[in-house]
Amino acid sequence: MRNLIIASTSTVHGSGYLEYILDELTVFFKDAKTVLFIPYARPGGISHDEYTEKAASAFSKIGKKVVGIHTFKNPVEAIKKAEAIFTGGGNTFVLVSQLYKNNLIAVLKETLTNGTPYLGTSAGSNICGLTIKTSNDMPIVYPPSFNTLGMLPFNINPHYLDPDTNSKHMGETRETRIKEFQSYNTPPVIGLREGSWLHVKGDSIVLKGNLEARIFEYNKTPYEIASGTQLNHLK
Amino acid sequence: MRNLIIASTSTVHGSGYLEYILDELTVFFKDAKTVLFIPYARPGGISHDEYTEKAASAFSKIGKKVVGIHTFKNPVEAIKKAEAIFTGGGNTFVLVSQLYKNNLIAVLKETLTNGTPYLGTSAGSNICGLTIKTSNDMPIVYPPSFNTLGMLPFNINPHYLDPDTNSKHMGETRETRIKEFQSYNTPPVIGLREGSWLHVKGDSIVLKGNLEARIFEYNKTPYEIASGTQLNHLK
Repeated sequence: MRNLIIASTSTVHGSGYLEYILDELTVFFKDAKTVLFIPYARPGGISHDEYTEKAASAFSKIGKKVVGIHTFKNPVEAIKKAEAIFTGGGNTFVLVSQLYKNNLIAVLKETLTNGTPYLGTSAGSNICGLTIKTSNDMPIVYPPSFNTLGMLPFNINPHYLDPDTNSKHMGETRETRIKEFQSYNTPPVIGLREGSWLHVKGDSIVLKGNLEARIFEYNKTPYEIASGTQLNHLK
Repeated sequence: MRNLIIASTSTVHGSGYLEYILDELTVFFKDAKTVLFIPYARPGGISHDEYTEKAASAFSKIGKKVVGIHTFKNPVEAIKKAEAIFTGGGNTFVLVSQLYKNNLIAVLKETLTNGTPYLGTSAGSNICGLTIKTSNDMPIVYPPSFNTLGMLPFNINPHYLDPDTNSKHMGETRETRIKEFQSYNTPPVIGLREGSWLHVKGDSIVLKGNLEARIFEYNKTPYEIASGTQLNHLK
């Protein structure tokens, strides 16, 4: 039975790493002493060790130990045996490339389907959708596929950003980009604003946090949903 | 002998499509009556016909006819025989996928190397670099490769945007993203602000327009260059 927290971001403005969601994680990870961390997305190019230290520092506040998957000889076994898993943000293309390189896509999908609790933030949330085709990241490496875990029947757009009506910049707005996605793909997309997350438990998918989220369905006008909305019908 | 205008954008704020650069294009395309338009990037998912009409409307102001490559049975021959070529912006992943699908990468490279004048804006400029790994676009389709024309020995980042110091958004800045690119790739990147372009003529690569551009070299602090700067040393 799926048990996932799929968060827009690790960090909200003016607060420390994971700080806004630590209370939730205390409950969510209550049966785990150790969290297996997947640091592959390497934000800003930091090393796997540095990134794991950052995650460990946050989780120490709720009494959890963190181990980086890069320290295991057999990462497939590490995932199978994990009490809990956290994939941090960074670059989605780098993350997905590493997951494929280490043959972790299938085992991660199986393990999460079987109920190992999983936290994803940003890139770590993107991979829970069908594909990374709604990532915001720069495509700095070429992964063998854009297909990901499909733990949700739709795609995530993390760090969702409303159009800046004062901007003189002519680059596409986030909404324009997501609509372009739906010129070529039919799955829905949920734009998760920073501080929002999805709590997935079995068949239930509920929006959490203080903010609304924006839903993009194929051939429909985008619309807002309130925190607490059940999304198990969305596909 | 290369003869290219590689522009950050088609449109600057408060002005019509290509309007800011029409005077330059009058001179640049002086020997061409007809411009072959590559509409594959389909901004906002518009059709090839609609996009071609948009380009035709702008070029009619300087007395040029525009024909869309999608109207030719043999697009390879269309490129070989073109008097001038323009590739418009939109989604870089869609553009590159279509170029590969129609076997146009090699012929485009050869034709531009031989001197057919070429204008690229945004996505149409991205493809002049080594790869699309510094595109800003959403990866809405999976292209067979990120490698592109290599008409320049470096990469372009169009619509370059300076960090917004007032923002509370935690998504990566453009500079952070480009630095991440250089954690995995060594080529330089030029951040072209809207209204800037590179004029490439033979061995000369000169920054044009009113603004400075930002250069990212591997393992160096990024720096600004003034309009008029010769970039033929950059690689």
